[in-house]
Amino acid sequence: MYSQADLKILVDKAIINISYNYEAERLIDPVKYVYSIGGKRLRPVLALLACNLFNDKIDEAVMPATGLEVFHNFTLVHDDIIDQALVRRNFPTVHNKWNINQAILSGDVMAFIANDCFLQGPPRCMLKVFREFNKAAIEVCTGQQLDIDYEKALIVSQKEYLRMIELKTAVLLAASVKIGAIIGGAEEKDTEYMYEFGRNLGLAFQIQDDLLDIYGDIKLFGKIPGGDIISNKKTYLSVKAFELSTGDQFKRLQQLFSDKESDPEVKVRFVMEIYDKLNIKTLTEDLANEYIEKAFSMLEKVDVSKERKKELVLVAGSLIGRVQ
Amino acid sequence: MYSQADLKILVDKAIINISYNYEAERLIDPVKYVYSIGGKRLRPVLALLACNLFNDKIDEAVMPATGLEVFHNFTLVHDDIIDQALVRRNFPTVHNKWNINQAILSGDVMAFIANDCFLQGPPRCMLKVFREFNKAAIEVCTGQQLDIDYEKALIVSQKEYLRMIELKTAVLLAASVKIGAIIGGAEEKDTEYMYEFGRNLGLAFQIQDDLLDIYGDIKLFGKIPGGDIISNKKTYLSVKAFELSTGDQFKRLQQLFSDKESDPEVKVRFVMEIYDKLNIKTLTEDLANEYIEKAFSMLEKVDVSKERKKELVLVAGSLIGRVQ
Repeated sequence: MYSQADLKILVDKAIINISYNYEAERLIDPVKYVYSIGGKRLRPVLALLACNLFNDKIDEAVMPATGLEVFHNFTLVHDDIIDQALVRRNFPTVHNKWNINQAILSGDVMAFIANDCFLQGPPRCMLKVFREFNKAAIEVCTGQQLDIDYEKALIVSQKEYLRMIELKTAVLLAASVKIGAIIGGAEEKDTEYMYEFGRNLGLAFQIQDDLLDIYGDIKLFGKIPGGDIISNKKTYLSVKAFELSTGDQFKRLQQLFSDKESDPEVKVRFVMEIYDKLNIKTLTEDLANEYIEKAFSMLEKVDVSKERKKELVLVAGSLIGRVQ
Repeated sequence: MYSQADLKILVDKAIINISYNYEAERLIDPVKYVYSIGGKRLRPVLALLACNLFNDKIDEAVMPATGLEVFHNFTLVHDDIIDQALVRRNFPTVHNKWNINQAILSGDVMAFIANDCFLQGPPRCMLKVFREFNKAAIEVCTGQQLDIDYEKALIVSQKEYLRMIELKTAVLLAASVKIGAIIGGAEEKDTEYMYEFGRNLGLAFQIQDDLLDIYGDIKLFGKIPGGDIISNKKTYLSVKAFELSTGDQFKRLQQLFSDKESDPEVKVRFVMEIYDKLNIKTLTEDLANEYIEKAFSMLEKVDVSKERKKELVLVAGSLIGRVQ
């Protein structure tokens, strides 16, 4: 069995070894730059762990897994343009370091480099794997669109918000573990359990990420709490608070979340006071825990020994901060 | 045998029948808009004609052919952002009608819709067809990068320019006819001849397009001649003129092509005077004709009766203005 650390090295190597058409170096420089600023390689590592559940040999899954990482990085490059983000992982974003046109075009080529990685997968299940990936890719674009749409909306329902993060974040994790399982030779039923495992894990992960913005350890995250509140970003917490508040409290929330002028610290404090009154922290933790339980119950159903699942349980657990 | 008109209708129908994830309508509206403003559907029609050379049944090629059109439209949406083009085919471009972010994201989803079309192709040659498409897609991005790079360069060699238009325009036409031939069941050797036919046709087409900018019939094209000269755009004509001119003439060209202030009509006239002295029109026509001859000689080598090639010869001929 492979460990997370082994697999990250394997993926990093595969990424470095991707071959390019170097006729236009300016096209590829930003691509390599994006890879070089790192990341946990979460999606390919999960895909390879999923493959390893069913098969001792994982080499056939390495390039499709790498394709998942390339695709994920493609979405980051274009999302950063759309969100006008200047920094990612403490490095300037591509459109910031180069320019918007370069980020569009170098992003585009990454979509086809991702395709190329999938085309290097095992022909016996190529069609199934590629369809799974491509379905997720279209859903990720759909989720990003909903995110943009909801940014402008004042009220977004809990249901709408959850579907948005499902599309934007969870389906790619779901597809990653399902693709790994398919290449590993899992039976249809198990590949579906794996998908549900990844989907619920992704939902829990995103909701916890929303929580960490205000209730995270400042020392651990190194940023002032409440960034999402300051920028009026929709989170599960804000959506839930809007849903539960009535009367003056609702009006106060509306006012706070449309305000761009007021003192940020004061704004965060006021919003947190309302969250406290509405018990938002606990409600959010409860929902995250529901998804976590659902995720692990799905993984349990997979017809593989407990021993074999250890590393995947560990990685998934560390992702959502579950102490083993 | 199918006619060009039959096939255009077939492709238009297939495009209309593409099914979408409608959860985010704003994502899909621009996609449908781009399809609706038309175009000749040249790439899918060529692919289907190529398929029809080798096979009476072409239904298996319809979705991959449609994928070529979707991909081509994806490149137009993103290229129009990069080129700051406000109008295409007499309609506002996507980023002009919506905004840049929408054009990035709706463009992105088209790349995956194109994938989806290819995934609906015949499984027996899926891998071969998809690899051919994806290689061309990466080359098109590379060509677009070179186009951007060369725009800023004062001197671009003939060789560099020809390679740029090969990547940006010719390889997708080449891949289109090769993909059609593969699905039609052509032998390896014939698929290579088809590729070379498409590649040379594409080069001739682009060079003729450069010629038409100044020497085209104003009545026919409805625009003032010399648009490329006015905007200092590299064309085969300008590149060749820089290559052949020396001394004062070279300096004069440099001056004219870096000038943005002077009277456009006067500028065009001065440049055309130099072109005339250097015999640029004839030299360019000669090169286009070389590529045309090469294209048709490649098509002749394809092991299919002359009778069967008639429609493809007709369409290719009309594309490069050759009277049959």
